[in-house]
Amino acid sequence: MTVLTEATRADLISVAHELADAARTATLSHFRSADLTADNKESHRFDPVTVADRLSEQRMREILGRRRPLDGILGEEFGASVGSSGLTWVLDPIDGTRSYLCGTPTWGVLISVADASGPIYGLIDQPYTGERFEGGFGIARMVGPHWTRPLATRTARDLGECIIMSTFPEVGTAEEGAAFHALARECRLTRYGTDCYAYALLAAGHIDLVVEAGLQAYDVQAPIAVIEAAGGIVTDWEGRPAHQGGRILAASSPAVHKAAMAVLRG
Amino acid sequence: MTVLTEATRADLISVAHELADAARTATLSHFRSADLTADNKESHRFDPVTVADRLSEQRMREILGRRRPLDGILGEEFGASVGSSGLTWVLDPIDGTRSYLCGTPTWGVLISVADASGPIYGLIDQPYTGERFEGGFGIARMVGPHWTRPLATRTARDLGECIIMSTFPEVGTAEEGAAFHALARECRLTRYGTDCYAYALLAAGHIDLVVEAGLQAYDVQAPIAVIEAAGGIVTDWEGRPAHQGGRILAASSPAVHKAAMAVLRG
Repeated sequence: MTVLTEATRADLISVAHELADAARTATLSHFRSADLTADNKESHRFDPVTVADRLSEQRMREILGRRRPLDGILGEEFGASVGSSGLTWVLDPIDGTRSYLCGTPTWGVLISVADASGPIYGLIDQPYTGERFEGGFGIARMVGPHWTRPLATRTARDLGECIIMSTFPEVGTAEEGAAFHALARECRLTRYGTDCYAYALLAAGHIDLVVEAGLQAYDVQAPIAVIEAAGGIVTDWEGRPAHQGGRILAASSPAVHKAAMAVLRG
Repeated sequence: MTVLTEATRADLISVAHELADAARTATLSHFRSADLTADNKESHRFDPVTVADRLSEQRMREILGRRRPLDGILGEEFGASVGSSGLTWVLDPIDGTRSYLCGTPTWGVLISVADASGPIYGLIDQPYTGERFEGGFGIARMVGPHWTRPLATRTARDLGECIIMSTFPEVGTAEEGAAFHALARECRLTRYGTDCYAYALLAAGHIDLVVEAGLQAYDVQAPIAVIEAAGGIVTDWEGRPAHQGGRILAASSPAVHKAAMAVLRG
């Protein structure tokens, strides 16, 4: 793990918020516009990528080029660039492009900083609702239009009292879907369609579990930073580090994580 | 249909906004609070009803008792009271109590006025996002924190280009679920978890179809007023009036409505 001075930490926090502010302006400039278009990035499945998605990442890269020129960048839209500082910014300029396309407010911007050990600080920003969820460097906090509050995950409870979320009911492959639904049947309530908002709700103590599959590093590193800062746990379905993506199990507490993993693994 | 003077219409609009303002305060006072509890109103399925739900309806009934004492009221929490004016207020103090319980921002407050023909004016209010969608008496408008815009549904397009929403992937009975999924397979994109927000997005021209089952009158009358004012169509799955609830087919245009109903009816 890179040892960072207080001045460096303060600079990283300041830069992260500047990135989020820029991405907020870029994404809102096209959200719910009549001319919204979507490319098919991958021909084998529907994956809209909008003008706003690219604009949002470009704006963030311009800021990083000016303020953090020695750091690496891994972004959804424009790939990876290697740095020399030992730090990498991991950016998802719009997480939840389908939500963005539909006008639902659950899409967000994911911004995080990683060292060789994984994410050390992150933001889940919700441009439309005006909420920003922040975790790392001793901070665990949400700021929004209605209130500013510390983030803390829920206390442990039986699976039968847990609320679980995933973005799509299909989850992933047929096998992954079956494992998810076996777990969901044990829980009190299942909700879909939440994108990165689900991880923010977990960090804020409103739900207990988020289980997804097929994620990329840029989908999960900011959520990991925020949830871990709030007292939760994020691993893959085998309990291993999840910051490279794949199958994600995010839980409010060690006890809920253990119980959920036992069901997912059959 | 009751003939209303301009003064009466203006009074109804004014009262509706006062109700929505009161419900917004009542619902936000408990949203995402740590002490949120849920009763089991019906023992055979999970249906949380919160303190906020009752408080929200009580506040609205107090206002109606003072400003519109001769109108009837049909509310989710406190049932029906008959009036003598020929007008009935139909109130859902929190539509999407599961979303409310989970902290997601898609729940809302539904307020509408009906005469013997059905809903004639309605509001879909989103307390957390600060958006209000209004339709009827020549108005079709949304007001929110980022912009005020007229409401207008999307132009007609092939089902293969349509976005469809429903709150739960199960939709209703096994038969209803099968009919929904037959239609969803014809569409470009399906999203879940949106509650009354889906109807607002349809009225605002972002999506094409909302299909649900098992709804109550108070779930659907405000959406009907708002969507019809924006140029859309809401019926049951047989094309009949839907204001008593049941199986709902809301569409952006006559052509999309017809194509969707043909698939739903097999």
